[in-house]
Amino acid sequence: MSVTDEYLENNARYAKDFSGPLPLPPSRQVAIVACMDARLNVYGILGLREGEAHVIRNAGGVVTDDEIRSLAISQRLLGTREIILIHHTDCGMLTFSDDEFKRAIQDETGLKPAWAAEAFTDLDEDVRQSVARIKASPFIPHTDAVRGFVFDVGTGLLHEVA
Amino acid sequence: MSVTDEYLENNARYAKDFSGPLPLPPSRQVAIVACMDARLNVYGILGLREGEAHVIRNAGGVVTDDEIRSLAISQRLLGTREIILIHHTDCGMLTFSDDEFKRAIQDETGLKPAWAAEAFTDLDEDVRQSVARIKASPFIPHTDAVRGFVFDVGTGLLHEVA
Repeated sequence: MSVTDEYLENNARYAKDFSGPLPLPPSRQVAIVACMDARLNVYGILGLREGEAHVIRNAGGVVTDDEIRSLAISQRLLGTREIILIHHTDCGMLTFSDDEFKRAIQDETGLKPAWAAEAFTDLDEDVRQSVARIKASPFIPHTDAVRGFVFDVGTGLLHEVA
Repeated sequence: MSVTDEYLENNARYAKDFSGPLPLPPSRQVAIVACMDARLNVYGILGLREGEAHVIRNAGGVVTDDEIRSLAISQRLLGTREIILIHHTDCGMLTFSDDEFKRAIQDETGLKPAWAAEAFTDLDEDVRQSVARIKASPFIPHTDAVRGFVFDVGTGLLHEVA
């Protein structure tokens, strides 16, 4: 049995106690941008409940055009106003460089990705970079309440850095 | 007090019972790509535990260059092998068109986004489109175990469509 099949069995159990549907717009008007890291259970870390906040995640928790797209839809069409950014300690993005990652792909496939891998060397600086990209975007109307944090995978605590 | 401040209070409670750190690579070797929708608690829906799977999320749960970037890092550097895609019923992406969304932004800001909004009109078709984009990417080495689902926000159940 694949892991996916195991998770589908979990889903059948989840549905037994499920009460829906909730409304489409996030009830707390918050959007979160976090790293995809397996140790970041965003619902647990923030005490989120179903229906409260949009959750956007990717490798690093960085802000590229796709996060701008998601945040623009979140704010313009679904009414969110606050943004919470979460990077974390022991992040995989600290362990390689864009150049070496893209070189390895090119050596193996013959093709060099046209996108940046978005690796970084300083966690706090990259949180500030992500905040700056959001504030610089002409497509995100509400940038007064953008706050950036680093999650400590050892303690479970968030530290504010931007 | 802002909603963000309330969530930080929740975080302090979360950290009290926290036992870390877990290893960086996802223990179940799975990556999930899901919509950012506030009603999709991916950890609950699949019965995920901390440390098991990468979770990638955006408006629609679609696959653009940034999801290819995240999946390439997930598989090439952190060892994941299965991919689970999750769209859902009552999705905001069904309620507008790219043209009207981008026209509204252009009318307000004077700038038209250079990116697609990735709205869609058929849920199942867009899940299949996302699977197809992953399988067509030269940068994702493992595409044998890519499965696509629609989450029903009324029942809590996943339906497999691709």
